[in-house]
Amino acid sequence: MDPKHHQSPPPESQDLRQVLVLRPPPVFAVHEHYFSTKFHILKAYDSPLPTHDFLKAYAQSVTVVLCSGMFPVTAEVLRNLPALQLLVSSATGVNHIDMPECRRRGIRVSNVVDVFSDDVADAAVGLLIDVLRRISAGDRFVRGGRWPAAAEHPLGSKLGGKRVGIVGLGNIGSKVAIRLEAMGCIVSYTSRQQKHCLPYTFYPNVLQLASGSDALILCCVLTDATRHMIDNRVMRALGKTGVIVNVARGAVIDEAEFVKCLVEGEIAGAGLDVFENEPNVPKELFGLDNVVLSPHVIACTKESFHDAMDVLIGNLEAFFTNKPLLTLVPNE
Amino acid sequence: MDPKHHQSPPPESQDLRQVLVLRPPPVFAVHEHYFSTKFHILKAYDSPLPTHDFLKAYAQSVTVVLCSGMFPVTAEVLRNLPALQLLVSSATGVNHIDMPECRRRGIRVSNVVDVFSDDVADAAVGLLIDVLRRISAGDRFVRGGRWPAAAEHPLGSKLGGKRVGIVGLGNIGSKVAIRLEAMGCIVSYTSRQQKHCLPYTFYPNVLQLASGSDALILCCVLTDATRHMIDNRVMRALGKTGVIVNVARGAVIDEAEFVKCLVEGEIAGAGLDVFENEPNVPKELFGLDNVVLSPHVIACTKESFHDAMDVLIGNLEAFFTNKPLLTLVPNE
Repeated sequence: MDPKHHQSPPPESQDLRQVLVLRPPPVFAVHEHYFSTKFHILKAYDSPLPTHDFLKAYAQSVTVVLCSGMFPVTAEVLRNLPALQLLVSSATGVNHIDMPECRRRGIRVSNVVDVFSDDVADAAVGLLIDVLRRISAGDRFVRGGRWPAAAEHPLGSKLGGKRVGIVGLGNIGSKVAIRLEAMGCIVSYTSRQQKHCLPYTFYPNVLQLASGSDALILCCVLTDATRHMIDNRVMRALGKTGVIVNVARGAVIDEAEFVKCLVEGEIAGAGLDVFENEPNVPKELFGLDNVVLSPHVIACTKESFHDAMDVLIGNLEAFFTNKPLLTLVPNE
Repeated sequence: MDPKHHQSPPPESQDLRQVLVLRPPPVFAVHEHYFSTKFHILKAYDSPLPTHDFLKAYAQSVTVVLCSGMFPVTAEVLRNLPALQLLVSSATGVNHIDMPECRRRGIRVSNVVDVFSDDVADAAVGLLIDVLRRISAGDRFVRGGRWPAAAEHPLGSKLGGKRVGIVGLGNIGSKVAIRLEAMGCIVSYTSRQQKHCLPYTFYPNVLQLASGSDALILCCVLTDATRHMIDNRVMRALGKTGVIVNVARGAVIDEAEFVKCLVEGEIAGAGLDVFENEPNVPKELFGLDNVVLSPHVIACTKESFHDAMDVLIGNLEAFFTNKPLLTLVPNE
């Protein structure tokens, strides 16, 4: 073998440190300066060429793509990138990536592991408090000038003593559980496997969990198994005083049924960071005071973005210097 | 002594179980039915007579008044009620009652102790998360139809690692501290006395606390000493990235200065359940995305109202049957 192949590419050669960005992930948009000083960024989204033509032009040279949940990396995208070796994802979940195709092609995938977990857990709790205690509704009430005119602001519902069911007790779900326990909630969960080391009650499925809960917090990944898992039956099992918080993915809920249940009072309220067809939010929700709507930003803080940037740049540096990736996603 | 004086008044005699309500406390408004079946309620607010004349008409017979923070029980009100023996307050604080005059007259005062503490603590944390993570602002963003048009929603600020200073580490402040610790905040406080049994850093005054904090949560009582305690100097010590949450009383903050600091960016944001001249909220705040405005309902849940009703009725029953009050407020 030619010894040149064993050598790291020289760091001063920008072309060898070429990173393709199909559509700028939020972390990249905020911290572009840091990326641009270290790598040669190919901006597919900024080119006058259609994406397909742009990819064709760089097909032989692109070895790394920086991607996010905002732009699905499908088999077709991958087909246009025959030299691809690494997908650096700015998200934790990888449901936007065709993982079987990556496996087949030997393309590695890195994510940002748990840099967003604390922020998502904090905001999940914030959404639950907001819905139960009507904080955003109260804010609207005051800003609408209704307070002096009428003291009629409905009572909220107490957090303490509520039975909260966590759907997916992974990194985020566990952090949500710790927070809710400090607030006097009774935590139970459903998850792919029972976690015997944790003190919370396990339910084998979401329907039973809903029956035994006053609120559900969705923290699971989106897979074929979890798509539309929260259906009409689950909502009815949760019941008319039940609340749902979704910080997972929109499609975990059957949104059409969900909107119907909310409008008809079949469940009491919801705090939603994610929707099935973002950025489109069902208009029926806009008039409801018992829902809190968040534009898929629950993970976004200055601090978490900084941490995510460190991981992304760390993975890119590792790749270009032939070192082990910091956060390789297992793909078997 | 006439043995009749040792007898409890017969419960069937409604007139002997007469309770005056000057203005209906929220708990009474919600649960009036329960009060009306047990006591003969004199509704000053429902009478065609002016309050002064109404009081005059019942001056000799009113021994108990049910009151709330919404109607100050001044020396003048007390003067109109020469037979008064007990003030049953639906609030925890008694700053709306002329306590020295009560002491002089031998009028006892009961409150609802800590039935609202957990709810206030939950909502204080909810307001802090909301401000830092821009939840109500995000809800406004989505409902305003801005999400599809522009993805420009500013980043929030992480809760974990924030140095949170609690002003007044009483019942509510301590509960806030427990919740924030579970979320990874670094808690310190100032209070009338240092609480050596608690693990949080004590600052001798609010100015030093503000200098060492990223956020202040106001949980103190309103007294002459705490009125306008949060002044321009404290806000500047907290600084441009600092956040204030007020679940105490509006007048703890110098509101005119506060509005100026918020508008001019001298502090970063605020979550406010209370205001200096309720229900009037400074209009300058209505246009700000970095404040969350709540119509003094932070303590109001169905559950806490039920608990409060139990305490109020328990005190009234105790009074009318010559038993010790459940929650006598010390007044020395």
